[in-house]
Amino acid sequence: MGYLADGVLKKDIKAAAKLMRYIEEDDIKTTGELKLLYPHTGNSHVIGITGLPGSGKSSLIDVMIDYFKSSNKTVGVIAIDPTSPFTGGSILGDRIRMQKHSSDDDVFIKSLPNKGWRGGISKATSKMITVMDAMGKDIILVETAGVGQTEVEIKNLVHTTVVVLVGGFGDYIQIIKAGILEIADIFVINKADRDNAKELESDLKSMFSIDDSKSKVNDNGTWTPSIYLTEAINGKGVGKLTKGILDHKNCLKKTGKFNIYFKKKSKEDLKEIISDYITSLVFLRLESDSLFKKLVKDLTDSSSDPYTVAEKILSKILSFKK
Amino acid sequence: MGYLADGVLKKDIKAAAKLMRYIEEDDIKTTGELKLLYPHTGNSHVIGITGLPGSGKSSLIDVMIDYFKSSNKTVGVIAIDPTSPFTGGSILGDRIRMQKHSSDDDVFIKSLPNKGWRGGISKATSKMITVMDAMGKDIILVETAGVGQTEVEIKNLVHTTVVVLVGGFGDYIQIIKAGILEIADIFVINKADRDNAKELESDLKSMFSIDDSKSKVNDNGTWTPSIYLTEAINGKGVGKLTKGILDHKNCLKKTGKFNIYFKKKSKEDLKEIISDYITSLVFLRLESDSLFKKLVKDLTDSSSDPYTVAEKILSKILSFKK
Repeated sequence: MGYLADGVLKKDIKAAAKLMRYIEEDDIKTTGELKLLYPHTGNSHVIGITGLPGSGKSSLIDVMIDYFKSSNKTVGVIAIDPTSPFTGGSILGDRIRMQKHSSDDDVFIKSLPNKGWRGGISKATSKMITVMDAMGKDIILVETAGVGQTEVEIKNLVHTTVVVLVGGFGDYIQIIKAGILEIADIFVINKADRDNAKELESDLKSMFSIDDSKSKVNDNGTWTPSIYLTEAINGKGVGKLTKGILDHKNCLKKTGKFNIYFKKKSKEDLKEIISDYITSLVFLRLESDSLFKKLVKDLTDSSSDPYTVAEKILSKILSFKK
Repeated sequence: MGYLADGVLKKDIKAAAKLMRYIEEDDIKTTGELKLLYPHTGNSHVIGITGLPGSGKSSLIDVMIDYFKSSNKTVGVIAIDPTSPFTGGSILGDRIRMQKHSSDDDVFIKSLPNKGWRGGISKATSKMITVMDAMGKDIILVETAGVGQTEVEIKNLVHTTVVVLVGGFGDYIQIIKAGILEIADIFVINKADRDNAKELESDLKSMFSIDDSKSKVNDNGTWTPSIYLTEAINGKGVGKLTKGILDHKNCLKKTGKFNIYFKKKSKEDLKEIISDYITSLVFLRLESDSLFKKLVKDLTDSSSDPYTVAEKILSKILSFKK
């Protein structure tokens, strides 16, 4: 135990990749490794990038990586990509541009399906953030595609949430309904050369009372979302966007929220670890203990119900020390 | 304890609505009630209806309800609707047509946001299915809007999955990527009067090797997805669709899969109950026990890590009887 953690701390990409695969598989082996990594975390700026497919998130991240690197920041990317739960593989190979960074020591990219993760997306993402943080990445970008509960859950795992939109692009009712706009610290209107970009900008301004003449940071330290127009395909506007992201980080630092994020994350992680551990112990016994096997058989024979069986099992295995 | 379960078994809509609200809130009170209901379940045919917003699912369900009722079936609907996690309310009131059934004793409709459910969507949906099943609903329709992990998870909670599509409607790459097509037992091409409906039909046929001249049930009892063209708005094709859904049920009955579903559900429910119970006990102690409070404080003071704290807590509270 610990050889993967050792590797991660030495910035060994192979060790990190292996550990992340175990995390993806919800393998019990990860616990010991993550424990060793935890004391080395809490330094990364974690940024969520979300928006509809086709909004150009991957291209945008590609250019953002260049900007962060030019200011000597190391970058990790966790890309949660919708794929078929049945084929297990990504259907579209639309990460070609981002791949140019994949042979680059300063940029670590982990691409993942957003379906069928054992134990849930946000749990695995939280652990992967721990790995990249311990690896010493200054910036961790978490990319989610689509519109759904995942995107809103990811909000709780990042410091800064960037929502990428495109003017005149499809049905915004869908993303309004999904509550994606409300989670934004920063809006990006990508493909800003399109006719409808300005229209979308003024819609957002009135929807979120955004006033360019005022400071983004209010007197009480709260943050008003800001809007950046970009053309990721040729890099236009992305420099300003990365500066805006840094502004948000500074606002979090000043108000102490940057560290509060990490404390909240540790507490959530604690709860996950405890309930995972107990649950897996119990389930192991369910499969091996002859009494429990009989109880589960009663259940599937329909001669009992899961609540009664649960009570019997709980009374057998659990005793709380006084 | 038990007065809500009593009410549900007497088909009292108010009692059922109250119990479902507790389920939504992940209230511990539900355990005792659900335990009493469980022996009365296992009879409903549970049908998932999924597809992109705008595909006309609600209108379709509305007409399906009429068909089921005309054959003397009672119907329950669980509608999982995207809403803002921050406002808590549904933005669009697009359930007006379905509302006509809401004063109808034979149709019970529970409409829900798909965000911010304490404890997760699939857990709550599973419990709501138990309530409607115990209420004696012949048919339970579970409607999910959108494309995401939810839709794929819901697949495990239903007997029959109906995927609603519309020809020439937006970007199908999104739903292909999300793996929605693979979960279909039945495809509906709604708004079939549109030009692109036939095109979509032939795409699906070639994608899933669907041959109208062959039986939907193969020699080994497996099911080939079938396609129905509907115009929900005027009811066209919906009769055939409901017959097709019944064909699928009969196929499941013949192969014994209909009951296997229920056994799998009880086993999954058992696991949820056990891990919920233990987890809530532990978390209760985390908040009240002075030793645990100190450990959590160490954690947020960054003088420890969640893995070490979890070990200490687990060694204190847990002992497995031999």
